[in-house]
Amino acid sequence: MTSDPIKRLVLCLSRLPGIGEKTATRMAFHLIRGPSSHLEELAAALTAAASGIQMCSLCHNLTQFDPCAICSDPRRHSPHICVVASPSDVTAISAAASYQGKFHVLHGLLNPLNGIGPDDIRLTDLVKRIESHGSPSTLEIIVATDSSVEGEATAMFIASTLKPLDITVTRIATGIPVGAELEYTDQATIARAITNRIKL
Amino acid sequence: MTSDPIKRLVLCLSRLPGIGEKTATRMAFHLIRGPSSHLEELAAALTAAASGIQMCSLCHNLTQFDPCAICSDPRRHSPHICVVASPSDVTAISAAASYQGKFHVLHGLLNPLNGIGPDDIRLTDLVKRIESHGSPSTLEIIVATDSSVEGEATAMFIASTLKPLDITVTRIATGIPVGAELEYTDQATIARAITNRIKL
Repeated sequence: MTSDPIKRLVLCLSRLPGIGEKTATRMAFHLIRGPSSHLEELAAALTAAASGIQMCSLCHNLTQFDPCAICSDPRRHSPHICVVASPSDVTAISAAASYQGKFHVLHGLLNPLNGIGPDDIRLTDLVKRIESHGSPSTLEIIVATDSSVEGEATAMFIASTLKPLDITVTRIATGIPVGAELEYTDQATIARAITNRIKL
Repeated sequence: MTSDPIKRLVLCLSRLPGIGEKTATRMAFHLIRGPSSHLEELAAALTAAASGIQMCSLCHNLTQFDPCAICSDPRRHSPHICVVASPSDVTAISAAASYQGKFHVLHGLLNPLNGIGPDDIRLTDLVKRIESHGSPSTLEIIVATDSSVEGEATAMFIASTLKPLDITVTRIATGIPVGAELEYTDQATIARAITNRIKL
């Protein structure tokens, strides 16, 4: 790695997702010319993240403490487990704030073309978690994977895997996004929204 | 600041220019889930940038050593000084690679509405630098400020300030960008390109 501190910072920043060399350069100069506390705080936050983050042994979310804040929250006593692909999905669903149940992070989606099969995502752990639950029949598993090909395939696979356990497995709704205009919505979404229409 | 290392990292990343909370969250998870060496290298690069960067006493560019690599480069003996608004402009012009002269960084552009006057940019230092030059009459000052209102005003002001010194002051060309189509180019640029036409 280069010894020039500016070039070195640009190189490290350009590894961030969606950040090319130009944006990384702009960020680097913004950090260097801004208050030095911002630069040092980011460095400290990165160091803290490198050392202080582990995986929750129950839900496999990233966390500072094990079990994580969600798994150990006594107010989250609802019989729902929301299955998501990644920790960032937990953040997104938590931010929407209407969900009060627990989570299970798969850390991936089935993608046979890229060689990602059922053993590469944390699905066995989900089955074990359900089996070790006191009254599994009261559980509802909400599959909240992306509405992509991989997400749909993973949802179908989870449903068939959990079928022998005789529990309720649901899937989050697909349809028109809130605030969207029909005119600018793609055909596949409109078709799905009509199929999944609900009674008013 | 929050004690949760993920939230703390997201907060620090969202201070970067053009990065909102969503992108910062994506970046944070990318860093946490990626190789830990990337996370630590970025932290180290930030720490190095916080402590190892100063301003060149000659050209005012940001640098690890004083005078900077450009000012102390014996191959850059051409009589040109390229005047730019910020250190990132030095990077941009150096990347284009056709320029072999030296630089002078103003650290700002004249902007009377925001209270930025001639004393707030490093213009006096440029005048001193020219006066202390062995043979100022051989110098050419290339004003390479942005083609914005502030950039143009600053260029005009520099030209009038340097007039008594009896040196050549030039301005980088404005016109159609390389590869652009006339159909999609704005009228002001086309008008300028026609005014500044050159003989073939």
